[in-house]
Amino acid sequence: MILLKNVYLNGQTTDILIKQNRFFQIKNNISAENAEILDCTNKAILPSFCNMHTHSAMMFLRGIGEDLELMDWLEKEIWPREDKLNDEYVYHISKFSVLEMIKTGTTMFLDMYFHIGETIKAVDEMGIRAVITYVGMDMFDKNETKRRIKNAEDFLSIPTPCHRVMKGLSPHAVYTASEELIKAFKKMTLENDTFLHTHVCETQKEVDDCIQKYGVPPVQLLSDWGILDQKTILAHAVHLKDDEINILKQSQSVVVHNPASNLKLNSGQMPLQRYLDAGIKVTLGTDSASSNNSLSMIDEMKIAALSGKNQANSSTSAKVQDIFDMATINGFEALGVQAGKIKEGYLADFILVDLNNYSLLPNVNLISNMVYSANPSCITDVFCDGKCVMKNAYVKGEEEIISNFKKTCHELLKE
Amino acid sequence: MILLKNVYLNGQTTDILIKQNRFFQIKNNISAENAEILDCTNKAILPSFCNMHTHSAMMFLRGIGEDLELMDWLEKEIWPREDKLNDEYVYHISKFSVLEMIKTGTTMFLDMYFHIGETIKAVDEMGIRAVITYVGMDMFDKNETKRRIKNAEDFLSIPTPCHRVMKGLSPHAVYTASEELIKAFKKMTLENDTFLHTHVCETQKEVDDCIQKYGVPPVQLLSDWGILDQKTILAHAVHLKDDEINILKQSQSVVVHNPASNLKLNSGQMPLQRYLDAGIKVTLGTDSASSNNSLSMIDEMKIAALSGKNQANSSTSAKVQDIFDMATINGFEALGVQAGKIKEGYLADFILVDLNNYSLLPNVNLISNMVYSANPSCITDVFCDGKCVMKNAYVKGEEEIISNFKKTCHELLKE
Repeated sequence: MILLKNVYLNGQTTDILIKQNRFFQIKNNISAENAEILDCTNKAILPSFCNMHTHSAMMFLRGIGEDLELMDWLEKEIWPREDKLNDEYVYHISKFSVLEMIKTGTTMFLDMYFHIGETIKAVDEMGIRAVITYVGMDMFDKNETKRRIKNAEDFLSIPTPCHRVMKGLSPHAVYTASEELIKAFKKMTLENDTFLHTHVCETQKEVDDCIQKYGVPPVQLLSDWGILDQKTILAHAVHLKDDEINILKQSQSVVVHNPASNLKLNSGQMPLQRYLDAGIKVTLGTDSASSNNSLSMIDEMKIAALSGKNQANSSTSAKVQDIFDMATINGFEALGVQAGKIKEGYLADFILVDLNNYSLLPNVNLISNMVYSANPSCITDVFCDGKCVMKNAYVKGEEEIISNFKKTCHELLKE
Repeated sequence: MILLKNVYLNGQTTDILIKQNRFFQIKNNISAENAEILDCTNKAILPSFCNMHTHSAMMFLRGIGEDLELMDWLEKEIWPREDKLNDEYVYHISKFSVLEMIKTGTTMFLDMYFHIGETIKAVDEMGIRAVITYVGMDMFDKNETKRRIKNAEDFLSIPTPCHRVMKGLSPHAVYTASEELIKAFKKMTLENDTFLHTHVCETQKEVDDCIQKYGVPPVQLLSDWGILDQKTILAHAVHLKDDEINILKQSQSVVVHNPASNLKLNSGQMPLQRYLDAGIKVTLGTDSASSNNSLSMIDEMKIAALSGKNQANSSTSAKVQDIFDMATINGFEALGVQAGKIKEGYLADFILVDLNNYSLLPNVNLISNMVYSANPSCITDVFCDGKCVMKNAYVKGEEEIISNFKKTCHELLKE
């Protein structure tokens, strides 16, 4: 048991008792024998973040090939370097990426990449949550389709090392994955009661090409194929036809907004407020550090708010509470995890922030401060599943994680 | 003398000797008797930031009245509260704002607000630089015009407490200041060899109203009035006619880009790349904490880069070095201060960043990391004018500054 004494929650000071991995009691003057007591005077408790779309092992590419055209960037800078990755490299990179997530207040993420056994190991060791997905990209080659389906089956058949790690499948996108592959992946995720994750409508070119090839735009296509339901999680969704917004709402599929990446790669601005108004489930993600270049959800919230107002042409759009919910509870809910709220019975995934940190003052509207003015220096402690993963801004073993990451990058990036 | 040993600069490790307030020598293996030695192993030196447009004493309004229409926000939330300000309040708020600037790596700013004697005092005490300007806003009332001109004369006649603080005049904008006032202010700044600062073309409405009233848009109008030269600093410049871009270039007037504020208030996106391509001098500012809501230039650089690419519809626009220069050397140059570069003979305004901080790894492109992934937790030390103003992330007296700011906000914001 952990007892948080005098912690600031929703404008008041209270005590919070954590039993096992959940908030057990929230009220004043709790006394609990045998509980580890944390004095939280001048600290606020907030839900931790859920980063709903990233490729965590791309972290080694941060800062590589800035300011290029998309295809130049991919072909000359990214793909040749990704070819050099192996299991060991991905393990060290993943640990570092998770370190950055913890430092910036994230305790769960949805990942799509390669060498995923290593990312699973890293997440397990670091003590946070993730849904790790196997990527399906067959480029319409039938042999590759078979191979990917087989691999996906194998991947789903192995148990995860702990309850904090879940598995899912990610057909990459409709321009890289065949109908057969996408349908097979959906079938497997249904059988395994897990998540299908994919990129959709990231660029206008993707939409145009899809219409040319299939006669309908991507979301319509996925709907026609029976792919869309509440366990389908669509990253980007920048360029949707009006009908498709309705399809998303009806299907209850989840959208992941990645505003920084969409702006940096000049993909466009997702019509956030339209989706919110339509009742679509919108979550937030950073995308990878090679197109963001941070995994900080604090950065991402501010960019989402600013981009949301600009895209809607209204200062009253993209309201702070909506943005904060996208970064917290909406993501956890989408992944079926009862976290993202400081409430009795909920999982104890949370951050403590220093109310004397300059970036949170004056404390008139803490949620607005988190969205617009906070930076990670205000986060003192991070808990996941009832356990402390960062204490006084220190993550156990961080020096070694950083040292291994630097060595890995040195190896991978040398000419 | 201060000797920085083994500091990382432009991809190499070197020593740097600071004599009085300037970089005296930059080379390997400097030995200097009597110098205070700073071991900078695993630290990089970078120029500190110059925040070219803010209203620092508006900090007490951070988080107040989010997500409103502009006029609702101003009339209901901002103006009634500003009426309560007095000298003492502004002193404490200014000290806090300067604290936030130092913590986020800024050593100079251009300020436009009221009770400015107190802001001058705060800047002097905190050890950084500023140009503090007296605001002229007569609302076309002739008595007020006279009063403001007299006040401006008085303000300019009093010497500043130190060489780090300079004075300027700010006619608020063409929709709030008369031709007589603006021309009188320009005359005074010319006589005193100092800066004229004003808001221009922040919103489309301002442009439309100006054309209706004067027959020409604001930049054209200021040009016709003889206001524009290289000591005129124009905040916002979001909505310019094609001709006006040329006017700016010819006049060598300086533009201050405030992307976060422009997006948050839904003013629009400045055509950054067009200005850069035209050879206009572009600098960067945060605007006030009530419309940003941070004074961090690190936040602002990322938003400038992302907005710049979006506005230009090109991922190759708003390049990292251009953005970094806007935040550093361009501002100092515009204010006639030889800082913003780590170079022998330049003023020793700089930051030290921890190269083992997660947000700066891998260290492939430090400038890109500063623009896109850094957060203030990477800054360990800040120097202004050769003197340390933040050491190991601590600013002398910060507890008291924070405590006084909290008290001040409590007084000002109580109902």
